[in-house]
Amino acid sequence: MNENFLSPLTSQFQVQYRYSVQFTKGIFDLKNPSLRDFLISEKKDGDTKKALVVLDQGLISHYPNLVSEIKEYFNGLTLVVQLTGDIMVIPGGEVCKNDPQHWDSLVKAVDLYGIDRHSYMIAIGGGAILDLVGYVAAVSHRGIRLIRIPTTVLSQNDSGVGVKNSINYHGKKNFLGTFAPPIAVFNDLLFLESLDVRDWRSGMAEAIKVSLIKDKDFFLWIESNTHSLKNRDLEAMAYLVHRCAELHMEHIANGDPFEFGSSRPLDFGHWAAHKLEYLSEFSIRHGEAVAIGMALDTVYSNQKNFLSKVELDRILDLLKNLGFVIFHTKLAENEKQILYSGLQEFREHLGGKLTIMLLAGIGIPREVHEIDEKSLANSVDYLEQVV
Amino acid sequence: MNENFLSPLTSQFQVQYRYSVQFTKGIFDLKNPSLRDFLISEKKDGDTKKALVVLDQGLISHYPNLVSEIKEYFNGLTLVVQLTGDIMVIPGGEVCKNDPQHWDSLVKAVDLYGIDRHSYMIAIGGGAILDLVGYVAAVSHRGIRLIRIPTTVLSQNDSGVGVKNSINYHGKKNFLGTFAPPIAVFNDLLFLESLDVRDWRSGMAEAIKVSLIKDKDFFLWIESNTHSLKNRDLEAMAYLVHRCAELHMEHIANGDPFEFGSSRPLDFGHWAAHKLEYLSEFSIRHGEAVAIGMALDTVYSNQKNFLSKVELDRILDLLKNLGFVIFHTKLAENEKQILYSGLQEFREHLGGKLTIMLLAGIGIPREVHEIDEKSLANSVDYLEQVV
Ligand SMILES: NC(=O)c1ccc[n+]([C@@H]2O[C@H](COP(=O)([O-])OP(=O)(O)OC[C@H]3O[C@@H](n4cnc5c(N)ncnc54)[C@H](O)[C@@H]3O)[C@@H](O)[C@H]2O)c1
Ligand SMILES: NC(=O)c1ccc[n+]([C@@H]2O[C@H](COP(=O)([O-])OP(=O)(O)OC[C@H]3O[C@@H](n4cnc5c(N)ncnc54)[C@H](O)[C@@H]3O)[C@@H](O)[C@H]2O)c1
Ligand SMILES: [Zn+2]
Ligand SMILES: [Zn+2]
Repeated sequence: MNENFLSPLTSQFQVQYRYSVQFTKGIFDLKNPSLRDFLISEKKDGDTKKALVVLDQGLISHYPNLVSEIKEYFNGLTLVVQLTGDIMVIPGGEVCKNDPQHWDSLVKAVDLYGIDRHSYMIAIGGGAILDLVGYVAAVSHRGIRLIRIPTTVLSQNDSGVGVKNSINYHGKKNFLGTFAPPIAVFNDLLFLESLDVRDWRSGMAEAIKVSLIKDKDFFLWIESNTHSLKNRDLEAMAYLVHRCAELHMEHIANGDPFEFGSSRPLDFGHWAAHKLEYLSEFSIRHGEAVAIGMALDTVYSNQKNFLSKVELDRILDLLKNLGFVIFHTKLAENEKQILYSGLQEFREHLGGKLTIMLLAGIGIPREVHEIDEKSLANSVDYLEQVV
Repeated sequence: MNENFLSPLTSQFQVQYRYSVQFTKGIFDLKNPSLRDFLISEKKDGDTKKALVVLDQGLISHYPNLVSEIKEYFNGLTLVVQLTGDIMVIPGGEVCKNDPQHWDSLVKAVDLYGIDRHSYMIAIGGGAILDLVGYVAAVSHRGIRLIRIPTTVLSQNDSGVGVKNSINYHGKKNFLGTFAPPIAVFNDLLFLESLDVRDWRSGMAEAIKVSLIKDKDFFLWIESNTHSLKNRDLEAMAYLVHRCAELHMEHIANGDPFEFGSSRPLDFGHWAAHKLEYLSEFSIRHGEAVAIGMALDTVYSNQKNFLSKVELDRILDLLKNLGFVIFHTKLAENEKQILYSGLQEFREHLGGKLTIMLLAGIGIPREVHEIDEKSLANSVDYLEQVV
């Protein structure tokens, strides 16, 4: 008998991921080959795969024919993919992540329709729907293939092209979730036309964020296209979405995709934003909160003498010129709470050491591990005056 | 403006995993350094980390001092790890995966105690408790560090050293779960002494399984140690557990750890086993069902002329000599159901093409993609006679 039966064993391996994000217009137009070609290219054995399509209810009033268009599109593909049951329509926005009945109805559908690990779940909608469906797909049978079709600026340039999903738990934002890359993403720019003005604008906050910490040229481009972006020029928005998605994806692939460490540069402006979303009872959009959070951390960066006054002004001006309101009364009313519980919750969700990204210049990030009360109070006051 | 704003983007990256499985005796003995040394080695920054310990209730009657021993062990480690709240004791066995209240109480504890992504959840118990705690750890905050201390043969040689977790959903076995490697595993052999005879035996089925598809020498070793293994010789069991864990870990690391493909060789004997566990209303243990499932697939392999009669006899004899009952009345009563819905559920859970592992010899696997009704019926009859 082997004497080494007490020697330790080590397991070491790596898991490969690969997915592409395609940009298109009119994805369910019968003449549009993007999705069809992808599905055909994925067909490896003789099997016809199943697909469960989940649609954001917020799209229906703007695209009353969408359900029938999707069905017709898949009618031409029955040898490759078979839609199961009916298309599921779920209320979009935070409610779908808050109310567990939506999560449950999706898991039940996976069971009922016999969706397996090689079937598809196809999520069409805003970031909230994508997060919910992504989470269901990730944990059902330990992972069903997920195709995302994001329909908001934020989901096309940030949440929908990344690797995370989540739902809320007893009001705790994103408490449950996983890291689970999709197998493909299709950004259909035409969906952006129907967005409410707040959602059109709100998603641009993430582009400004990523430009501030990673790409000064992109910041300059946004600055010089303020007018078109504000006036809903779709081609300008297409560029903004594309470059923002690219920067996010590069960051994820070259960094720490599943966030095992404690640094999360893409969360610039987010620590106060998360708390503010909560304090406003989600009456402000994620991107609106991020704009305020970035404004706050930008002023704070200047208070700490990391960032020049010239650059501070430029950043606040861009936010204002795009139509963002960069202050919220809850910020002044709950200053201490934002500072203490906001920072603590942010640290807890990330884990490890508190790490906050500030700015040392446009495109130049600077990490700190604490926020001081006095400078933060000054920053809040400053914002209240300049807004 | 860049003209390529419609060009596709691709994300490609790999995620690295590494964990070790240590073998020890008396892990919470104050003189035992294994766990302590590991925790100290993980302490990177100044922070003291939190740990939430979850204990299998089935251990308490056998080790009435366990809770206080664990607390004392961690008392000597307060600068490194701080136990949060009290140690949570959860009923072991399938009930903890079936009843959602256990899942919920754990998620609540993660929230209440502020367990973050860099804290630990430490699960001590059988495969069911490890699966439950592993799932909670995997989805809370998108992943808390998991330490497993398996206490049954099956969990020490198979489930606890692998990368999967799960809970049941409305009676569907392992319907919800993820692939999420632990950060460390500690197999404490002394826990095996208190196992019920059925649990002692049942875990050996996985060792026979892995020997049959991967390692003839290991099969021969089990054969020649039948007597010691049956008579609860702890050193013999230690070797069996070690080698079986090693073969499982090698398979996972060198194969397809997160099972993106459709082949799952480690599921030899499992397709009928899963159905049988269900049909017996979980009155038979997983390993007992696997022994029957392997016996069935072994006879079937002989019926199809893949496997010689000599080897067939040897395999059935080993199972019987270890005390396994290799037939169950539900097998004859529900032959068609086992064949059709059993195969279908097995395929669905794995996804993709039906892939069943059979034997072409001891240590020589052979994949097939269908099971024929006639030969299966003959195999069931055969087993009924030889049992
Ligand atoms: N997973 C991640 O990495 C990540 C990153 C950032 C944000 N998020 C999450 O994304 C969510 C926010 O996503 P969002 O900003 O896309 O908003 P949203 O999903 O909340 O949608 C906002 C509203 O727009 C509607 N809508 C969607 N598409 C539309 C369209 N084309 N036309 C008209 N209306 C449309 C929706 O029905 C909803 O009412 C939050 O839950 C946030 O936590 C996730
Ligand atoms: N994750 C995986 O890869 C994987 C693989 C195989 C099986 N499993 C799962 O593992 C579970 C079965 O695990 P198991 O066979 O370890 O049984 P178990 O966890 O169901 O435990 C069986 C019984 O033994 C008790 N017990 C645990 N340790 C003991 C000890 N040292 N002394 C006395 N009693 C003890 C438990 O309280 C329970 O009553 C199933 O739910 C199965 O689905 C998971
Ligand atoms: Zn954001
Ligand atoms: Zn098994």
